[in-house]
Amino acid sequence: MTPSGVITLLTDFGLRDPYVGIMKGVILSIHPQVHLVDISHEVRPGDIVDGALVLQEAYSYFPPGTVHLVVVDPGVGGARRPMVLATQTYFFIGPDNGVFSLIIRNHPEAKAHHLTERRFFLPDISRTFHGRDIFAPAAAHLSSGVEPARLGCSFTDPTVVDIPAPRVRGSVLYGTVLRTDRFGNVITNISRADLKAFLQGRKPRIRMGDHLIEGMVGCYAEVERGTLVGLIGSCGCLEIAMSMGRASEHLRSDSEKIEGTEVSVRRGEPSEDLDR
Amino acid sequence: MTPSGVITLLTDFGLRDPYVGIMKGVILSIHPQVHLVDISHEVRPGDIVDGALVLQEAYSYFPPGTVHLVVVDPGVGGARRPMVLATQTYFFIGPDNGVFSLIIRNHPEAKAHHLTERRFFLPDISRTFHGRDIFAPAAAHLSSGVEPARLGCSFTDPTVVDIPAPRVRGSVLYGTVLRTDRFGNVITNISRADLKAFLQGRKPRIRMGDHLIEGMVGCYAEVERGTLVGLIGSCGCLEIAMSMGRASEHLRSDSEKIEGTEVSVRRGEPSEDLDR
Amino acid sequence: MTPSGVITLLTDFGLRDPYVGIMKGVILSIHPQVHLVDISHEVRPGDIVDGALVLQEAYSYFPPGTVHLVVVDPGVGGARRPMVLATQTYFFIGPDNGVFSLIIRNHPEAKAHHLTERRFFLPDISRTFHGRDIFAPAAAHLSSGVEPARLGCSFTDPTVVDIPAPRVRGSVLYGTVLRTDRFGNVITNISRADLKAFLQGRKPRIRMGDHLIEGMVGCYAEVERGTLVGLIGSCGCLEIAMSMGRASEHLRSDSEKIEGTEVSVRRGEPSEDLDR
Repeated sequence: MTPSGVITLLTDFGLRDPYVGIMKGVILSIHPQVHLVDISHEVRPGDIVDGALVLQEAYSYFPPGTVHLVVVDPGVGGARRPMVLATQTYFFIGPDNGVFSLIIRNHPEAKAHHLTERRFFLPDISRTFHGRDIFAPAAAHLSSGVEPARLGCSFTDPTVVDIPAPRVRGSVLYGTVLRTDRFGNVITNISRADLKAFLQGRKPRIRMGDHLIEGMVGCYAEVERGTLVGLIGSCGCLEIAMSMGRASEHLRSDSEKIEGTEVSVRRGEPSEDLDR
Repeated sequence: MTPSGVITLLTDFGLRDPYVGIMKGVILSIHPQVHLVDISHEVRPGDIVDGALVLQEAYSYFPPGTVHLVVVDPGVGGARRPMVLATQTYFFIGPDNGVFSLIIRNHPEAKAHHLTERRFFLPDISRTFHGRDIFAPAAAHLSSGVEPARLGCSFTDPTVVDIPAPRVRGSVLYGTVLRTDRFGNVITNISRADLKAFLQGRKPRIRMGDHLIEGMVGCYAEVERGTLVGLIGSCGCLEIAMSMGRASEHLRSDSEKIEGTEVSVRRGEPSEDLDR
Repeated sequence: MTPSGVITLLTDFGLRDPYVGIMKGVILSIHPQVHLVDISHEVRPGDIVDGALVLQEAYSYFPPGTVHLVVVDPGVGGARRPMVLATQTYFFIGPDNGVFSLIIRNHPEAKAHHLTERRFFLPDISRTFHGRDIFAPAAAHLSSGVEPARLGCSFTDPTVVDIPAPRVRGSVLYGTVLRTDRFGNVITNISRADLKAFLQGRKPRIRMGDHLIEGMVGCYAEVERGTLVGLIGSCGCLEIAMSMGRASEHLRSDSEKIEGTEVSVRRGEPSEDLDR
């Protein structure tokens, strides 16, 4: 695979501290012509599943040969391996702690290498900031053409963490809220394909807690202000949204995190189009 | 107009979700040599006037031929047209919902085209994320030299929303607070030119709610800590600021939004210099 | 010194307002090939010491010849000089208000020039936004090869502000909390070298307020969840951290800022390795 010269960065570092800028300085010192793009630095601190979901949503929109650098690394300096993962189209680099679970699930052919070749790292390696000392320099070398195999030995058991998948029990499709976005949209793990296969030409009746949402709309503007709606969001999954409002605040009990909440779908009346 | 190779991005997407990064990936997949610059992604969600004001403040500092990509799009997927607007110096691309109102007001010669040519979009077009599926790819094509006319038909009635302008009634100049910035500066719609024309060589007496501010200063550091002052801020408009403090918190009632508040100016003593 | 073509930006402007984007537009209008990297825009508003600390942590990871543009400038428009500072390896540009104190302390050979040559600025110079009108254009010229001496006269008394250094009194090493990071790590001004020289092969007994922390660890993951630990953090200084938690919230009284709090270290049992 030929590198595209693009490196994306996805971390839980936030933007107040200079950590992201430092990684970019390290990369530019090795590969001055690189194109750096931030995916997000607001992954919830140490939340590997949150990082895996954001990566899944974004990675495929980049040019083939892009290096995706992901540092959500609560176990930095411990036993987890620093790794590079190569699918047929992209490179992924970061800790082997499950943050690449969805890539591995969807690309069983992906090849993992343990980053061990210190000549591709910074000379001094801290035990608290491998993003700077290991991942950034290795990503810079990858993006300038170094093969993954030169960075360390391959291995076949990369870490995969459990990320809930939807399931059908009886006449009900059960899913889970994975995350909310800035607009308060509540994003589930039920894909358009899951929903179509389950509904068999009927309208969905969506239940979340005490709320029943009948049918689906195609876009946020289709209904009156303040109405809760189901729709297929931009990542291709079922979302609960509120027109001109924040569904997440409406659906959440005060004290609870909404991520992890169950969403159930039953079959309603016949319908011609999922999006109507 | 020759493109500069620069695309700016202005949205209400925030930086936690991967939406901005995804748009950049789409752009780089089409135009790898582009230079991407963020103006802001913290426009208030769905607030078209806020987006229009931030764009107005920033756009003219970029190289001629820059493509300004603006996605503040509460009606995404509905009836509003996706559009490109070309002045003599810049391209603007985004929804035809009023977010370009100030550009249109100041550049009546600007030409609008309805984005309809699907070969310049992503192959699949969602109804919830035109930033990714329509605006980003079309912006990439614009910045690599595709003429606006090839993106769709021209039209002559782009949407303009009402953004308050200052007005004189009797011996008083009335203006409105448009926004506040990070430093708590309270920015009005009264420009330096408005003020000079009104004052006719006299000092301003500025009133906002119960506060009377006499005269103007040239910079924040000119007065004692905690003093409310009037000055011409960096966007060339009258601001109320507080030296080493936050005017916005001092001037706002607890329960109210400060945007939209009336500011009035009367003529005071003779003065040699507006900024003294 | 040959410029690297990289300009970093470090400000207290935040990311909601368009100020950072505007500076980038100004730079690109002068030097289109430049590579722009954000270090942080979340320096506490007007906090010169905070800016100096963030700069110190980040600057040396960039390619030699990088221009570091720093705008933390509460005295903008007043008497403080706009300046450029050149060490043997980097350029620094910003207000002469102490934000470069740590660079000057560590590089006494650095040469300062007063930015006075208006042909390298924007044509109109406001008194409230020198980042846009003076520093950004001058940085663009520097990064495209203009020598510092052409930007204005040299001077030898750049402003240095007091930033606390650790000190030994009797058998105790006293330090100060300088800042906290996103993960709640509490970062002191005691460097690894300070600590080694003081401990002379013994374990540290660290005290902060009512908390006593015995010994050090090498990384966050080494101890049980919720344990307060001392370690040498990524900037090479003593940090107090909490495994899988936020030390800053645990150590801070409700009403107080933790920055400036005293940390003391005494010598404990013999130890082979500082990091064990």
